[in-house]
Amino acid sequence: MSAHKGSIAAEARATEASPAAPSSSFKIFHRVVDWITNERLQLINITDRINDIVRKSGVRDGIVHLQSLHTTTAVFLNEWQDALLADVRAILEDLVRRDGNWRHNDPRYSDCDRRNADSHLRGMLLGQALSLQVRNSAVLLGTWQSIILAEFDGPRSRTLSVQVSGI
Amino acid sequence: MSAHKGSIAAEARATEASPAAPSSSFKIFHRVVDWITNERLQLINITDRINDIVRKSGVRDGIVHLQSLHTTTAVFLNEWQDALLADVRAILEDLVRRDGNWRHNDPRYSDCDRRNADSHLRGMLLGQALSLQVRNSAVLLGTWQSIILAEFDGPRSRTLSVQVSGI
Amino acid sequence: MSAHKGSIAAEARATEASPAAPSSSFKIFHRVVDWITNERLQLINITDRINDIVRKSGVRDGIVHLQSLHTTTAVFLNEWQDALLADVRAILEDLVRRDGNWRHNDPRYSDCDRRNADSHLRGMLLGQALSLQVRNSAVLLGTWQSIILAEFDGPRSRTLSVQVSGI
Repeated sequence: MSAHKGSIAAEARATEASPAAPSSSFKIFHRVVDWITNERLQLINITDRINDIVRKSGVRDGIVHLQSLHTTTAVFLNEWQDALLADVRAILEDLVRRDGNWRHNDPRYSDCDRRNADSHLRGMLLGQALSLQVRNSAVLLGTWQSIILAEFDGPRSRTLSVQVSGI
Repeated sequence: MSAHKGSIAAEARATEASPAAPSSSFKIFHRVVDWITNERLQLINITDRINDIVRKSGVRDGIVHLQSLHTTTAVFLNEWQDALLADVRAILEDLVRRDGNWRHNDPRYSDCDRRNADSHLRGMLLGQALSLQVRNSAVLLGTWQSIILAEFDGPRSRTLSVQVSGI
Repeated sequence: MSAHKGSIAAEARATEASPAAPSSSFKIFHRVVDWITNERLQLINITDRINDIVRKSGVRDGIVHLQSLHTTTAVFLNEWQDALLADVRAILEDLVRRDGNWRHNDPRYSDCDRRNADSHLRGMLLGQALSLQVRNSAVLLGTWQSIILAEFDGPRSRTLSVQVSGI
């Protein structure tokens, strides 16, 4: 099933009579953003960068979807405050011990020599994909919500795929 | 606000020539829902409320996106059963101790006097944004799936932004 | 790259009264996929299956949304490597003990006799819904990202609802 037929009809009509507002047809905008990280566990505030992309997308209302292309990273929301960021590190180090008895770090079971089982498991807990609403050409965020990209196995070059869709 | 009106205009136009099915053009519908919470850690079943919004949206097939605008909250799925809800509290209190040695709660490092580091970290683990499918003008949910809004730092007034998009 | 240019082109086309490119109108495609699981905690690599569905959907750019209809399951991304999968099991068994003192497993509080509180809580931590980008008619995934369906209370028959939307 698709909206194909309906949209074509509507667009065709609009040209004959009064033009449909540019904002009323579905669009998808895409940008790839790269970061070089410096630390093994690093938190990066990407809110402004994402808002720039949303502004350029021409989408007024819709969804911005963020997807990191790396299993040993995460994307999530939290307040951007130094003390709290220290707590974010602390809880991740506590829930998933770096020195745990992980098979992924054991050459008898694994061909990976990065010893980054903790990085994979932390990424899994927080997730690599995040959808947020776009309203009035900006990312919808509460007063204390910042968008955070987490590096769990740096330093590395990291890629985030950003898709803005809507009207 | 919603794109509904814009789409209707385009469809009305289309009916003058060849009729497009009303359901076949992309729409976005938006509602803000507020809750007053009573407890510090409170779980609220918002399934019926979300289904009401989806029904009113005029979207038959698509996505409903829920985004709480507060870092010390979460939105997730689980069975709505008293015994299990007690276990949800227990696991959150166990994984993220309220009395942990958090910097966010320490006036030497933080200007926040709510002592709510645990609330932030619990919100981060479960997440504040959730997308669910809309099918036949209802939220798609399994038999035992309820949509739960979690308050982790109440009592407060809380806002959830609900966006329904699709055809 | 973005679909922006494509949409503009399609609109320009419409004004000439020749049909818009098939790829430029919004569509939604839906499939339900079932699995029979064999173990209590089982991890299933569903990447190829999801890519098949995306390919058949006719959507070139958009979102694929995966929603498991069961609270005692999860859908997430990670590397598909035997050693790491053992670690995924280990961390889940460590964070949420099967033999914890759960009310959901206690006949004094619960009418559920599956003793599956751990399954519910593990499903809640990892989540049952996942959105991923669709680019060039395929799921966008990094080199090491596989899509994993987790069974936490098998053996059972499990249903995943897959929705592909976009242009």
